[in-house]
Amino acid sequence: MSWAKCVRGVMLDISGVLKNGDIAIPGSIEAVKRLRDAGVVVRFVTNETQLTCRMLCEKLIRIGFQLTENEIFSPAPVMVKLLKERKLRPMLLVHPRALPQFEGIDQSNPNCVVVGDATDVFTYEKLNDAFRLLMEQKRASLFSLGRGRYYKEVDGLCMDVGGFTAALEYASGVHAEVVGKPEKTFFATALSDMALSKSEVLMIGDDIVSDVGGAQEFGIRGVLVRTGKFIAEKDENHPLVKPDAIVDDLAQGVDVIISQRMD
Amino acid sequence: MSWAKCVRGVMLDISGVLKNGDIAIPGSIEAVKRLRDAGVVVRFVTNETQLTCRMLCEKLIRIGFQLTENEIFSPAPVMVKLLKERKLRPMLLVHPRALPQFEGIDQSNPNCVVVGDATDVFTYEKLNDAFRLLMEQKRASLFSLGRGRYYKEVDGLCMDVGGFTAALEYASGVHAEVVGKPEKTFFATALSDMALSKSEVLMIGDDIVSDVGGAQEFGIRGVLVRTGKFIAEKDENHPLVKPDAIVDDLAQGVDVIISQRMD
Repeated sequence: MSWAKCVRGVMLDISGVLKNGDIAIPGSIEAVKRLRDAGVVVRFVTNETQLTCRMLCEKLIRIGFQLTENEIFSPAPVMVKLLKERKLRPMLLVHPRALPQFEGIDQSNPNCVVVGDATDVFTYEKLNDAFRLLMEQKRASLFSLGRGRYYKEVDGLCMDVGGFTAALEYASGVHAEVVGKPEKTFFATALSDMALSKSEVLMIGDDIVSDVGGAQEFGIRGVLVRTGKFIAEKDENHPLVKPDAIVDDLAQGVDVIISQRMD
Repeated sequence: MSWAKCVRGVMLDISGVLKNGDIAIPGSIEAVKRLRDAGVVVRFVTNETQLTCRMLCEKLIRIGFQLTENEIFSPAPVMVKLLKERKLRPMLLVHPRALPQFEGIDQSNPNCVVVGDATDVFTYEKLNDAFRLLMEQKRASLFSLGRGRYYKEVDGLCMDVGGFTAALEYASGVHAEVVGKPEKTFFATALSDMALSKSEVLMIGDDIVSDVGGAQEFGIRGVLVRTGKFIAEKDENHPLVKPDAIVDDLAQGVDVIISQRMD
């Protein structure tokens, strides 16, 4: 199991690895605890944009996980920092619950579009407003909080932000800048907080492109779980991404990581 | 004006060439009449999918144009024929006014998705239903009635079907089959009805890709108008399509065509 050697830190995706919807995936609560007990540094690296980091943290604690808010890395805080740095005024196409994260950001007379996993906010009218802004303002930027194709909820698969970003890109001809996985800078933010080197860290996720491909592009190991949105026929022989390992679930992955540390 | 030589038939786009919204573009009513008076065969080749051909014909007559319903070629009737031939049961993401065209087509237990210019029907819920069908049914087909990026309404530019098709393609990984411009088979249907050869016919439209590029790919001349959705900086030096001519409007194009016939 060479993929699990010398692991001192683990980045964990949340949806599909720790939980499906509001339900913990069997063994995952204990798996996170076992990593910590073994002295492994844990960070939660997610493209979740329906909730603030605080809400997400509270939800995970309610389900039974032990973590703190500052261990979670999600796209919105990185986006807010970028908007401030570039002095941009966004038109926000994000979930209503995500809005508090953008408080204090000037949204008048917008000169860029920020798209998150907005679900029911994706109406024709709202998408068309964003499209018109991109067409009418020269050099208007389009930002996408992650670029996922879909995720799994309890009632089935759900379209993620990526499709809606693709719609705006196709109609406007403006290419989106991604903030979140699989962008390297996003993994870099989390790694920097772990104070470890790339060779000591691996990412575990259920998205072969955003989690595994993104991690590998960044230069850390990427491990795929067979939980969440995993679909064997699509993911086991993916044309572009070959995971360092595929494990049944987080618990099995952690078993191997910890057994390697014991050796 | 070699582009206008030996023209015995003209295919006309409707929106942006004849009219903007419900308003005739100045000179266009007379231009169509002058083509007919000069013995030029006229067909209306449109990606309009918000209305049936009958509604569209009635609307154009109300505005002042002279035409018959069977001179209009739009994607829905071609789609209906294709559904029957392949014995497919569609999930329809189309405008409510377009639904009557699909009467008599079995829509129970759908095994394909048909996307038109559905405007407000494009909700997250409806798009997600279509996405799930594409993910759950192996070999489910996705059809797009045209693939336009945008069109111009009186109040501004509007996202066309292409972006929403791109969203479903991105999320599901299923590639759409296009029914309508710029597909060659669609132009072929109209040409066959004109009983002319390719060298005798040209297409006039405001969409550089669907109208002009599509016509040229099919093997007829493609002329762009500066009305409708035309945007000089994007269309005059398009990276992929070079029109046979660019004219200010339909009236100017018809002037040249008729003057060439007189020579």
